[in-house]
Amino acid sequence: MVFIMKPNVPEEKIRSFAAGWEERGFGTILSVGTEHTAVCLIGNTAAVDIDHVVETSGIVAYGKRITEQYKAVNRTVHADSTIVRVGDVRIGEGTFTVISGPCSVESEEQILEVASRVKAAGARILRGGAFKPRTSPYSFQGLQADGIKLLLQAKKETGLPIVSEIMNQTQTPYFEDVDIVQIGARNMQNYDLLRAVGKMNKPVLLKRGIASTIEELLMSAEYILAAGNKNVILCERGIRTFEPMTRNTLDLSAVVLLKQKSHLPVIVDPSHAAGIRSLVAPLAKAVLAVGADGIMVETHNNPAAALCDGAQSLDLDQFDALMEDLKKRAPLENKTL
Amino acid sequence: MVFIMKPNVPEEKIRSFAAGWEERGFGTILSVGTEHTAVCLIGNTAAVDIDHVVETSGIVAYGKRITEQYKAVNRTVHADSTIVRVGDVRIGEGTFTVISGPCSVESEEQILEVASRVKAAGARILRGGAFKPRTSPYSFQGLQADGIKLLLQAKKETGLPIVSEIMNQTQTPYFEDVDIVQIGARNMQNYDLLRAVGKMNKPVLLKRGIASTIEELLMSAEYILAAGNKNVILCERGIRTFEPMTRNTLDLSAVVLLKQKSHLPVIVDPSHAAGIRSLVAPLAKAVLAVGADGIMVETHNNPAAALCDGAQSLDLDQFDALMEDLKKRAPLENKTL
Amino acid sequence: MVFIMKPNVPEEKIRSFAAGWEERGFGTILSVGTEHTAVCLIGNTAAVDIDHVVETSGIVAYGKRITEQYKAVNRTVHADSTIVRVGDVRIGEGTFTVISGPCSVESEEQILEVASRVKAAGARILRGGAFKPRTSPYSFQGLQADGIKLLLQAKKETGLPIVSEIMNQTQTPYFEDVDIVQIGARNMQNYDLLRAVGKMNKPVLLKRGIASTIEELLMSAEYILAAGNKNVILCERGIRTFEPMTRNTLDLSAVVLLKQKSHLPVIVDPSHAAGIRSLVAPLAKAVLAVGADGIMVETHNNPAAALCDGAQSLDLDQFDALMEDLKKRAPLENKTL
Amino acid sequence: MVFIMKPNVPEEKIRSFAAGWEERGFGTILSVGTEHTAVCLIGNTAAVDIDHVVETSGIVAYGKRITEQYKAVNRTVHADSTIVRVGDVRIGEGTFTVISGPCSVESEEQILEVASRVKAAGARILRGGAFKPRTSPYSFQGLQADGIKLLLQAKKETGLPIVSEIMNQTQTPYFEDVDIVQIGARNMQNYDLLRAVGKMNKPVLLKRGIASTIEELLMSAEYILAAGNKNVILCERGIRTFEPMTRNTLDLSAVVLLKQKSHLPVIVDPSHAAGIRSLVAPLAKAVLAVGADGIMVETHNNPAAALCDGAQSLDLDQFDALMEDLKKRAPLENKTL
Repeated sequence: MVFIMKPNVPEEKIRSFAAGWEERGFGTILSVGTEHTAVCLIGNTAAVDIDHVVETSGIVAYGKRITEQYKAVNRTVHADSTIVRVGDVRIGEGTFTVISGPCSVESEEQILEVASRVKAAGARILRGGAFKPRTSPYSFQGLQADGIKLLLQAKKETGLPIVSEIMNQTQTPYFEDVDIVQIGARNMQNYDLLRAVGKMNKPVLLKRGIASTIEELLMSAEYILAAGNKNVILCERGIRTFEPMTRNTLDLSAVVLLKQKSHLPVIVDPSHAAGIRSLVAPLAKAVLAVGADGIMVETHNNPAAALCDGAQSLDLDQFDALMEDLKKRAPLENKTL
Repeated sequence: MVFIMKPNVPEEKIRSFAAGWEERGFGTILSVGTEHTAVCLIGNTAAVDIDHVVETSGIVAYGKRITEQYKAVNRTVHADSTIVRVGDVRIGEGTFTVISGPCSVESEEQILEVASRVKAAGARILRGGAFKPRTSPYSFQGLQADGIKLLLQAKKETGLPIVSEIMNQTQTPYFEDVDIVQIGARNMQNYDLLRAVGKMNKPVLLKRGIASTIEELLMSAEYILAAGNKNVILCERGIRTFEPMTRNTLDLSAVVLLKQKSHLPVIVDPSHAAGIRSLVAPLAKAVLAVGADGIMVETHNNPAAALCDGAQSLDLDQFDALMEDLKKRAPLENKTL
Repeated sequence: MVFIMKPNVPEEKIRSFAAGWEERGFGTILSVGTEHTAVCLIGNTAAVDIDHVVETSGIVAYGKRITEQYKAVNRTVHADSTIVRVGDVRIGEGTFTVISGPCSVESEEQILEVASRVKAAGARILRGGAFKPRTSPYSFQGLQADGIKLLLQAKKETGLPIVSEIMNQTQTPYFEDVDIVQIGARNMQNYDLLRAVGKMNKPVLLKRGIASTIEELLMSAEYILAAGNKNVILCERGIRTFEPMTRNTLDLSAVVLLKQKSHLPVIVDPSHAAGIRSLVAPLAKAVLAVGADGIMVETHNNPAAALCDGAQSLDLDQFDALMEDLKKRAPLENKTL
Repeated sequence: MVFIMKPNVPEEKIRSFAAGWEERGFGTILSVGTEHTAVCLIGNTAAVDIDHVVETSGIVAYGKRITEQYKAVNRTVHADSTIVRVGDVRIGEGTFTVISGPCSVESEEQILEVASRVKAAGARILRGGAFKPRTSPYSFQGLQADGIKLLLQAKKETGLPIVSEIMNQTQTPYFEDVDIVQIGARNMQNYDLLRAVGKMNKPVLLKRGIASTIEELLMSAEYILAAGNKNVILCERGIRTFEPMTRNTLDLSAVVLLKQKSHLPVIVDPSHAAGIRSLVAPLAKAVLAVGADGIMVETHNNPAAALCDGAQSLDLDQFDALMEDLKKRAPLENKTL
């Protein structure tokens, strides 16, 4: 249940209103926006009489029941679209943020070359895996802490903010200077990790699990917001289906639905979805057209020699070409790259 | 195995070359294109020595083994993109053909109003279901033959070519004046029906089954071409996945792959894929951006009262708005609507 | 909505009660069973007052609303388990009917050898494909009408009733002497074919589509019953999932649910579900234990040379061994083979 | 690549043989069994000449390439079926181990009552969730450390070994006296957690992820064995499909394949697979018949009031009845309960 406050009610009164509910055993979420300020109740509200609250509180404009299990991420509770800020990058409405870089950080030379080239082409954020979740214990597991150091070096040299995947909550110290911490698809329902990044003071890029529903993705985001971190970026990256020709099936309907149902920004990773290089550019154009807030694309200076996911990585020239194409298209969407 | 002919070889020689293979027990497909003319062998070619054929035939430029089971629809065999012509409408490269109309033809008034409005908005082909495959035997099954008559009347009044679904091979007489005959998703592997439309002298719109792979869709198209009809339009319309929030999951990667692997035009039906009206326009934009050759969109003059699929149908004003938007976007794709 | 009649009401009165509803625009299904006789209404029953009907009719014991779309196949409407009789074979409660034979009829020698051996081992019905739905137009399509003739010859020599797949409604004449007509998975929603077999005077074996829900399977059976044929056997044969190691994923929960929700017998085809010979016997044991009414197993006299599905076919000795095992187990389930 | 040693080769020689490969940069797995002792190489073995090794080593009977990515769990490497021992319980060939208890530990009274009753009925191990992974942050998250304490109390009073789920690697201290540590479906690819339990000196029950392939499950088990823990029990618990009538689709083919491909014991959780109480008993019988080594079944003293998964929990009498039925069936499988 959410109560939308009348305009210009002093915050003190709203906090006191919320406190009253907490005394009665409810959890509360306070959502302050330009469209409205709202207090959302968590708990069994079956016995709450909305009309009575509106009449007696003096500060509530109206109330409504929220049937969805997700509350803090719900656009009904928080009508303003969330803008996640990373340095001077704004992720969310009005922009189409391109995140690029290799699947794995492999060497200083590799990450610096890729970083400078994707920056020159127009990428706003550098991605790179240091701690890598791999199906086989015998596969390359990433450069680990050294990978993070190389990313930080690339950040220093190019000025690009960086995003990298965290695999468990004991790794948080490594991510102190990382700009965005990523939760990978396999960890989307690793709730202790969600709680841990919910306490970090930096944006979280939350990838949809390969067999997770849209609602489950929102519920996982809810864990992060419930732990105190409102800067969550949702990421569609393909779901597992019967179709064998692609690695996963990219679900662009999810982008539209996520943006309808939640105020959080939504980006798409066409590289992992397709698993095939030649699909990345056409899908990226579709991602822009469908209304997403950005893409994350794997780019490598030598895909044929990549230690991970080479088959889906663009080379540097292909990334240049993609960016040229996206730049032509962004104005039609009223977005800046 | 496909043999690409040298340029300017007389057709007679090529036919004689093919006949030689048929005498040896192979099937052959003759593919004549601007890029090249080719003869494709059907059967067990393991023992065929390509180099020997090239050397001795005098007319073969080169040969290669085709690992795919689909031959006639394979771009390796036929390099030119197929353009399907319906009146003055060209479906295929260079155009983005919009097909629209109601899920079911319900009345003269309904189909005439929808037809004139979608034509005015820029649709090039009118769709309308007369024979309706319904999950329940107790649901409205379409107006049947009367539905076809109403479509023909709408065609006469607006000049729009029409497309409608055939449910079994005994219905072919009803479709004599229908411009494009549609095979629905449930019938994609109804092979006797595929053979029957393969003998009709008109284009076939073949929808992907809800749980059919891309390769199976191509194999079903192969049935139609093998029966003699080269005018096949493939249609992606969403696949069945675990995600409950949409009717099906639209698979735009399939569009890219189908166009890479086959020379046939590919259109998309975002209405059935999503099952939700508010998703149709964003998905339609993505369909255009990803490189498809058209869309098929359900439009109704009164969706709330539709006898079928109202929840996913655009109303006439929404269709106008979508067409305005697509018109702005088509030039970026070098396509005409 | 279903009305359960009081005991011993004369049939004439019940027919007259049903006729009254038909006059008011409803469809009706009359279900006569040992547990009760019932009249089920088809149509919008929102305005029907059950209590009023009970009070005024004099013959209705009680009524209830049926939320499911399926009516005639619904156990709520028809409480007695249906027994399908084929010669002296009873398919349904109390028996575990083993149907076996090759995927395709290939030759006289083959079908006669397989038939006599599976009969000797204890199979009660012979299966064999004559009209084969194949993904590729270039694959063996079955012996067609000749295949049916060979099956009839095997029936004559062994006394085994036969089951074979029909692919379209124009083929019904070929099936005149076939004991059970099979609808394959690809045709589960070929509604015109369902209507056609609904008018045939013989049992129908209806296979679940590879991506059809349990409810859709019941709705397809409803088509057959609605057309007048109550002798339908449902067949679970595996569904399409992301798992690549098996051809399909056998869904044994479906067996339990189908038997709870419907009165129709349910058998299982473990051969197509698994697609791997070594899985057939363990799955067959599980099928018996879970409560199914039978299995359909592919057996071939020379699986390595089979024209179709050899990898999943048992050889004759393996089938013998499976039958020995099932015979030991059937008493525990209070079933006769 | 695996090298099978000749019989009676002294262990010292085998270790020296393995050490030689490690010096050349390969990883090695030493597998000692009654059927044979084997040394498996990890790494790129393309250049290794098997015949040369057999000839020159003097101790190798034969070698073969292993195409599967999983090595230590592979039955080709380790032919003997692994028996996992927990107190006097033997999990693996020859037994059918029933694990039962509530989804969540809720109170002393609850867990003690359930424990004593499931023991009396014949369960050999008590399950109970203390740390609960829940889709919503607002749902009951389990009694946490207190839940473990209550389980230990139940263990003390009944003598039943206990199994409970660990959610992250910082929780290992709580599990010191827990007999079997469980990895839940959501954590099947939480590789850091797999490594952590791989270093614990106790059996691990590893559940298949809801959208994980059989091969991925084996690869996750490989992580645990590679970290040093050979006592892994695999658990099939249903996979996510399009079918909405059950919570998940139980995949019994997976049981057969897992036992063919791996030497690890395999149990099944029909409660989570079905999500419906009335399906648990029939599925449990199928699990026994298909050849699994046990089941894990949720039982509650008051399912209607359960804080979690009540709809799929058996009550105590239903569990009694199930055990009676399984006891009758086990001899047919040559298994003891």
